[in-house]
Amino acid sequence: MSRLGTWTPTTVEERLDRMESHAAIRQLPYRYALALDSRDMDALVDLFVPDVQVGRDATGREALKEWFTNTMRRMRTSVHFIGNHIIDFDDADHAHGIVYCRDELEQPETQEWEVGMLQYWDSYVRVQGEWCFQRRRFHRWYIVDALTRPSHGAGVDDGGRALTTHQLPEAFPSWDRFWSSLDRSNRE
Amino acid sequence: MSRLGTWTPTTVEERLDRMESHAAIRQLPYRYALALDSRDMDALVDLFVPDVQVGRDATGREALKEWFTNTMRRMRTSVHFIGNHIIDFDDADHAHGIVYCRDELEQPETQEWEVGMLQYWDSYVRVQGEWCFQRRRFHRWYIVDALTRPSHGAGVDDGGRALTTHQLPEAFPSWDRFWSSLDRSNRE
Amino acid sequence: MSRLGTWTPTTVEERLDRMESHAAIRQLPYRYALALDSRDMDALVDLFVPDVQVGRDATGREALKEWFTNTMRRMRTSVHFIGNHIIDFDDADHAHGIVYCRDELEQPETQEWEVGMLQYWDSYVRVQGEWCFQRRRFHRWYIVDALTRPSHGAGVDDGGRALTTHQLPEAFPSWDRFWSSLDRSNRE
Repeated sequence: MSRLGTWTPTTVEERLDRMESHAAIRQLPYRYALALDSRDMDALVDLFVPDVQVGRDATGREALKEWFTNTMRRMRTSVHFIGNHIIDFDDADHAHGIVYCRDELEQPETQEWEVGMLQYWDSYVRVQGEWCFQRRRFHRWYIVDALTRPSHGAGVDDGGRALTTHQLPEAFPSWDRFWSSLDRSNRE
Repeated sequence: MSRLGTWTPTTVEERLDRMESHAAIRQLPYRYALALDSRDMDALVDLFVPDVQVGRDATGREALKEWFTNTMRRMRTSVHFIGNHIIDFDDADHAHGIVYCRDELEQPETQEWEVGMLQYWDSYVRVQGEWCFQRRRFHRWYIVDALTRPSHGAGVDDGGRALTTHQLPEAFPSWDRFWSSLDRSNRE
Repeated sequence: MSRLGTWTPTTVEERLDRMESHAAIRQLPYRYALALDSRDMDALVDLFVPDVQVGRDATGREALKEWFTNTMRRMRTSVHFIGNHIIDFDDADHAHGIVYCRDELEQPETQEWEVGMLQYWDSYVRVQGEWCFQRRRFHRWYIVDALTRPSHGAGVDDGGRALTTHQLPEAFPSWDRFWSSLDRSNRE
């Protein structure tokens, strides 16, 4: 497996196409964050596949727009600051990736300015020539007020969160393996 | 409009050239931040077009170097940490973009270590084969001391700032539209 | 020198290859951070050249894995959030770069949640078709507990650090030049 995923293109056309796809996929989380922070809900849902799954029972961009609108009206300022973006191509039209994000959320009710660290575990697909999010799954280390020291799992399980959020670092399959192998070598 | 802007290249040469341009433009804010944080003023102004506008009355890299020197001598350590970079191509030689930045500034006079979140709204142009900033406009959510909770607009209007700085999130045209449409639907 | 380094490819094949290399090199620090934060030590050391230098006396990925394991077992949660990545190509198979990183480290012994700002000064080489880190040198502005105001050099010289860490901003050759030239112009 190369640094760009398991799929390896062969022709010049395929190789150039992969570079264009890579650039387009890099733009997806950047455009997601900007659309969210500027509350441009149409631009936001346009980044997802037309038949995007929304919760258990709904699909489509209109349903997703309603969901995002209801979520983002509860807070004021939001800043989604994007860092690391690992991308793995599965084939010419499919890829998956992990995105690091530091989010800040102004909460008028509690007067808090929340700051968190999370990861999106993404899948991407090309639909009619345009790369889209197929799915984003939320994984979070913590979210706390700006004047609170972060701690393991802080804020992750709060009932108010609208989405299933997985706990980091335990969600990494390699995390337990690392500590288990240390335990074994300590006993030996 | 695609994920890479309104301009779509057609030939292999144009497509490859756009990928090289994309990579070069991605480097611009990274190199800007490094030049600023290392106080390499020649490298810094070399990233701008030769006839860059400096304030109302001056132009050129020498004038810009003087301006940056006067600004950056007032503080000590600076860290410009770059995140999201949205890029839209207008044609083969013109593009515009938005860059997220988390800046840290050591202020010897006040003994503060300021931390802020801002955006650069950029335009890029290729001059004699080299991509340059044509203009960077500053938009800021806040800048506060590291031990102060951020709040809406905190620090943005301080008289000491040398540049016109626009207030986020209000500078987003979509921001008001979002809240207005919510108000309308609440009244209905 | 262009925005992508001193080496300039000429043929379409070379140009396309450079774009693929650029994308692969961009992935290196992202994959390094993810491997570290998920404690996937095999994935981590696979990003380095097979004969990587480890300290003064050891070489190879197994030695590096042991070193990283001993370092990362002392802390729990780690978050390596990657920003700016400056890349300069030296030739088709060699490049060097600078990476900004904001790291967070949960320290069970002190009950602290450390937050720091650092740079990696990297060299990259292509070995058997795969881009690798040849060397990463650590340069740090500071590392402090989340509730402590950062300050110049804070935490950098702590005896507990296992690696030579250079102090920023003094490690920038341009830093002294800037202040010296200001002193000179003040005396004139």
